This record gives sequence, C-alpha cells and structure tokens, in this order.
Amino acid sequence: MEHVRALLFDVFGTVVDWRQGVASRAGPFLARHSASAVDATLFADAWRKRYQPAMEAVRSGQRPFVRLDVLHRENLEAALAEIGIDAASIDPAELDELNLAWHRLDPWPDVLPGLARLRQKFIVAPLSNGNIILMLDMAKRAGIPWDAILGAEVVQAYKPTPQAYLRTVDLLGMRPEQVCLVAAHNNDLAAARACGLKTAFVLRPTEHGPQQTSDLQPEQAWDVVAGDFGELAGALGV
Amino acid sequence: MEHVRALLFDVFGTVVDWRQGVASRAGPFLARHSASAVDATLFADAWRKRYQPAMEAVRSGQRPFVRLDVLHRENLEAALAEIGIDAASIDPAELDELNLAWHRLDPWPDVLPGLARLRQKFIVAPLSNGNIILMLDMAKRAGIPWDAILGAEVVQAYKPTPQAYLRTVDLLGMRPEQVCLVAAHNNDLAAARACGLKTAFVLRPTEHGPQQTSDLQPEQAWDVVAGDFGELAGALGV
Repeated sequence: MEHVRALLFDVFGTVVDWRQGVASRAGPFLARHSASAVDATLFADAWRKRYQPAMEAVRSGQRPFVRLDVLHRENLEAALAEIGIDAASIDPAELDELNLAWHRLDPWPDVLPGLARLRQKFIVAPLSNGNIILMLDMAKRAGIPWDAILGAEVVQAYKPTPQAYLRTVDLLGMRPEQVCLVAAHNNDLAAARACGLKTAFVLRPTEHGPQQTSDLQPEQAWDVVAGDFGELAGALGV
Repeated sequence: MEHVRALLFDVFGTVVDWRQGVASRAGPFLARHSASAVDATLFADAWRKRYQPAMEAVRSGQRPFVRLDVLHRENLEAALAEIGIDAASIDPAELDELNLAWHRLDPWPDVLPGLARLRQKFIVAPLSNGNIILMLDMAKRAGIPWDAILGAEVVQAYKPTPQAYLRTVDLLGMRPEQVCLVAAHNNDLAAARACGLKTAFVLRPTEHGPQQTSDLQPEQAWDVVAGDFGELAGALGV
C-alpha cells in the first residue's frame, strides 16, 4: 500500500447505512398512504433490490447513462406498485421528497472519526454509483469531509464496469496502484483489483440487517481487511 | 438572491493568485536553465496568455476536450520556446513538476475565512476551467473547504460556453436561478447570466499585477458586488 495516494470509497453500505435510513423515511410515507402494515425495512429492501437491474440496463448499453436519482425514482414507482400503491395517485412532489431519502443517509458511527484521520494522509473521495448531488447533499448533511465527489456520474459509467474505476484513476492523474478502493462488497473490490487498484475490505455485517448472509468475510486476500474505518486508519498508519 | 442554494466559484484570479504563485515556481526553474534575466512574473503572464487560445481550440470543436493540465503543459513548452529555451532539452519530469505550479497556488487572504462562513449556508464548489485533480490538489494543500469539485472537466466543456454552466446546474439538480457564479471577471459573469444563473462580482484589482486595466469595476449590475469574500459573506447574510 506504500504507493497509495487516494482512497476511494464505495458509499451505500460501506459509508452509510442505507437500509435503516431509507426505512426511517419510508415508514411515515407508508403510514400516510394506508400501508402501515408494510414493514418499512422490507420496503427499503424491495426498493434497493431494483438497483442492480436498473443499472444493468445502462451498463449493457440498453439505455444511455442516466444518474442514479432517476433510476431510484423509477424504482420507487415499481416498488410501490408491488405493494399495491399506484404512484400516479400520489403528488409527484411527495415521491420526489421520498426519493431524497437516499441523499439523507447517516454514516456508520466509525466513519467520521476514521475519515478525519485518513484524510490527513490520503485524498479521500467517494467512488459510488450515487450521482453527484446525491453524494454532495449526503456529505453536507452528515459532515463527511470528502476532498472531491467522484463516481459514476463523473465518469458516466456504473460500477463494476472497468471504465468506472479506470476513468476515475485517469482523472486523478495517477496509476491504478496509487488508488485504493475501500468497500464492504467483495464484488466491487474484485472489479477494482482487476483494473489494478489496491483494495481494502471493511466489514459491514448488518448492512442487510441481522440475517445478512453476504460479504461476511473477505473472499480474496485484499490488501487490507478492517472491521471499521478506525481499524482501516490504523492499518494505514494514520 | 433568496433562491440561491449553491455558490460556484471561478478559481484562477478569483480564489487564487495565479500570477505570483506561478512566478514563485518559475523563478528557480528559469535560474536553473540560465534564464535568470527573464522576469518570472512576465514569464507567468506569457504562459497564461496561451490559456484562452488553447481552450478556444476545444470550444470551437477543432480538438476534442482535453483537461487543462494537458493544455498547460503544451503552453509551457511554447512559452519556453519564446524565451529561447528548447523544452526537448529538459528532463520531462522537470517540466511536469513546473506544470504542477498551477496545482499549488495560494488563495487570496480573505478566501478561507470567507468560505468558512459561506459554506454554512450554501453549497460551495469551484466552477473552473481547471481540471479535477488540479482543483483537488490546490484545495487539499491550501485547506479550501469545497463541498465538491465541479468544473470544465466534469461537464467536458470550457467556460464561457453555455454548456459549462448549464450542465453544471443540471448536475446539481437545480434551476439556474438557484445557482450563483462568483467571479472576478465580467465576461464569465455575463456568460453565466445569459444562462440564467445569479452573479456575484468580487474585485481582484491586482490579479494581473499593479498595472491591471481589466475588471476593475462591474460592467453590468451584477446581483452582488463585493470587495472580497468577507464582504460577499456579509452581503449574503452569513
């Protein structure tokens, strides 16, 4: 890791707890629309379940790049239909507001103190599939001290396509081995490693709730493995 | 200005003193290459003089978008040729290093305290023709607390083309009147206003040295006119 100058972070799941955050906004919305019987956390899961297929339409070239806010909004309507709510019957401004739940997610408790240490030595920036204003609103609200907002929208490519990593490395004017991806997801790290980036796995065993079965351990010998951002900072000597 | 949510800043001249900054790095370089007779400040001017024509080649479609670091590097070779120095005779790593002078410019003294106030109420980000890593290195070195790094490279368009402003507004998910450009240059503000953005003029009467003749006063009734970033913060009620 001695050549690393920039740490780029996956965000949903790695930096913020999207599941609890989305559920906390969805709960009151569901109650207002006579759907309090629907578990808000399961609704968050259902909304999120449409995330990869929606990006896959872009990755495969079926549709041109559109930012994640647009995909989230489409997916919201589909997730509502699944529980018998017709989005067309709801004021679009209220749907837009619920869609902003993704802009207002809270970081895991170790993130802010860990990043404060890490940014003393490294450039720190998100490399998320979230779009620029989503990341910016989130950071501003939570006080996440990014040095820049990088990610899918900047390079017009969704992870895990190689372009998402390689174009970002190019923007930084660095070689791949000068950049390390920090993520709680083995598949993201595998794609980054295939592009020559360094890799740091941070365990987030409750991203998907107490019954989580995925990403409970490193599936390759990543360059760093850490329990949280504090351990990551320690491993990187800051 | 009541609807404004984001302040976007021109950087070279408005946020940082490029002339003194570049001169301070060029001086030792010129001395090493037997050109101490060349005034380093005039060399900085000569280097900068090639900035608009180089971007014009991109704006006019003569060449595809390339980041400013690349244009600066080409312009450096041309500016050296003008004073009789053959760039081909110099180690490319030394030219690359001098090119980084643009990454290491100091802000005017009012910038950091002014931005600390402004960012409490507004999203603050550069909207510069400088590329991402240039802006990022500069901000990290000087402690400029941007919320994001926006600008020409993100939207693949150089100011003052309308796309540079309008695509940036679109990324922010805002309407043009929710975004205010802060600049020391009347032409930049005029182009932003033509796109519907709000405008704030900050006077930088020594950007081009003590004999400056341009941009010594507002040429239109800009939404705000301020002597420095502290006055700007006061005018915006923070």
